[in-house]
Amino acid sequence: MSTPASQQPSPQLFFQTMSAHQRTEALKTAIELELFTAIGEGNTTAADIAKRCQASEKGVRVLCDYLTIMEMITKQNGQYALTLDSSVFLDKRSPAYVGGAVEFLDSPLLAGSAKFMTEAVRKGGTAMQDDGTIGPDNAVWVTFARAMAPLMSLPAQLMAKLVDPKADRKLRILDIAAGHGLFGISFAQHNPQAEITAVDWKGVLEVAKENAQTAGVADRYSTIEGSAFDVEFGSGYDVVLLTNFLHHFDPPTCETLLQKVRAALADGGRAVTLEFIPNEDRVTPPEAAGFSMTMLLSTPSGDAYTFAELEKLFANAGYSRSTLHPLPPTIQQVVISEK
Amino acid sequence: MSTPASQQPSPQLFFQTMSAHQRTEALKTAIELELFTAIGEGNTTAADIAKRCQASEKGVRVLCDYLTIMEMITKQNGQYALTLDSSVFLDKRSPAYVGGAVEFLDSPLLAGSAKFMTEAVRKGGTAMQDDGTIGPDNAVWVTFARAMAPLMSLPAQLMAKLVDPKADRKLRILDIAAGHGLFGISFAQHNPQAEITAVDWKGVLEVAKENAQTAGVADRYSTIEGSAFDVEFGSGYDVVLLTNFLHHFDPPTCETLLQKVRAALADGGRAVTLEFIPNEDRVTPPEAAGFSMTMLLSTPSGDAYTFAELEKLFANAGYSRSTLHPLPPTIQQVVISEK
Repeated sequence: MSTPASQQPSPQLFFQTMSAHQRTEALKTAIELELFTAIGEGNTTAADIAKRCQASEKGVRVLCDYLTIMEMITKQNGQYALTLDSSVFLDKRSPAYVGGAVEFLDSPLLAGSAKFMTEAVRKGGTAMQDDGTIGPDNAVWVTFARAMAPLMSLPAQLMAKLVDPKADRKLRILDIAAGHGLFGISFAQHNPQAEITAVDWKGVLEVAKENAQTAGVADRYSTIEGSAFDVEFGSGYDVVLLTNFLHHFDPPTCETLLQKVRAALADGGRAVTLEFIPNEDRVTPPEAAGFSMTMLLSTPSGDAYTFAELEKLFANAGYSRSTLHPLPPTIQQVVISEK
Repeated sequence: MSTPASQQPSPQLFFQTMSAHQRTEALKTAIELELFTAIGEGNTTAADIAKRCQASEKGVRVLCDYLTIMEMITKQNGQYALTLDSSVFLDKRSPAYVGGAVEFLDSPLLAGSAKFMTEAVRKGGTAMQDDGTIGPDNAVWVTFARAMAPLMSLPAQLMAKLVDPKADRKLRILDIAAGHGLFGISFAQHNPQAEITAVDWKGVLEVAKENAQTAGVADRYSTIEGSAFDVEFGSGYDVVLLTNFLHHFDPPTCETLLQKVRAALADGGRAVTLEFIPNEDRVTPPEAAGFSMTMLLSTPSGDAYTFAELEKLFANAGYSRSTLHPLPPTIQQVVISEK
């Protein structure tokens, strides 16, 4: 055709989007069948992969072709191979394997909430029962703590280096909604004088304590069980970590919490927030901006806040100054707010 | 970062893919709420669109931002607008509106089959009951005939022009698995001497007959009720249409049918096949190649066949020659096979 495709109307994006859900299923199926691991082990034809995965050759051929179209594997002369990303993150033998994150990302509460998108858009918040993911002591956070830890190791290390570059003095750290605990634990690994106090639901803290033990920092790791909105934090902390927490709540709720956090900080202390932070246009970068939808689906009034909005929340809560710090190569950013 | 993103492993594609299903839901929700129509009518802010769609402003803002990221609408200075594609295909007031296709594409049999992908890959065919979509007289084909017709109008017209460019002589056409009937009907509209005989299940033919009536060609339109594998076609046809049919079956089944079709053709007659035809690599072009997955999920042994495979099927069934013809701007192609 001589006319550029962009000038001729096409229903192609409509069709692609209507089948986008198949991509999620294809990834889940490939992880379940250990297909990436099978290829990593040296099985490169549909026949060999099928044998290793205990599946039909035809089914494996169709799935592998589909994953090739999705750019999760490659195909050359009928032989499949892993991409760099797949070999690092989807081959079970890799230390950075993240396939287990499916347990959280595909949990009924998170993936299932998308099925009620129309109702959530009508309502302006989750259509799931019991306030979606933020109900008291929701079991999804134990799943989260176990499933998502492998993905958080890198950002946790980067954050510790950013916030405590010299690592040469005693640091008391409060880790709010600690989850797997990796953020606080990274500070403790990075700085031998750091002491961590982690807040979360009891069941979640069991996971964090296991991780602190494994990391060899259990002697500098204590916990406070319960909701961050209810428990006593104590005081005199040098750093309070708020990692992927504020996005679950509306601005007044965030401000209330940030005042409480400020009261727990020592003079010169800092609140350190890790978030998906869209630009002011709210549509870039796509991953951070798209996170608003996840919050709409799974929380009553959460959101992905822009830096201007976060800055305002902290200012309203009495902080003197907030600064924004990218955390490459992750898609998240850090806001450091001074008491 | 100075390192090119491509050389640094990233779990980004993993995350994107795990949330790809949200894109399908977002499109369905937007169609259900008539959001594209609302924007087309001149509502450009989240507040105005929300009012028109009877939804919350926040929910609409999040959905519109998400659709902007998906490139289905645009956003400039907080104002949303339709893209060319959305205005043509997703605004209800457009004659080319295709939103109704959701009824078929999101039907339990088609969309639901993706939920059983792992089992389908293990088995090499649909894990749905009753042979998926190809069971006798499956009601999904009445849904198909009603929902997909708007998308088939253009390819049907293009095909009639390709196969019967002069439209200057009597043409007897057999339209196998006619569905909405648009392919046969287009030949009848294009050539006043064309006579169509459509084969399909009874309920489906009701839809085709309605469409023939609306198109003003009912006096040259007759029908044969039943399975193409069972009914008597008659003989002496100049053209037999096989549009989106062969992909449901395995090669031996296709060959049996093609022999029967050949017997129904007049000397010099042609079988005209419309298909999703991947290249020999089976992974390009993406839309045609990806259709193999839809067949794996929804049929016992269907597939998206390459041209070499189709050529062989026709040769084995006794045809003298098959030629391949793209049908731009559609993603499908036509194979013309001479008796």
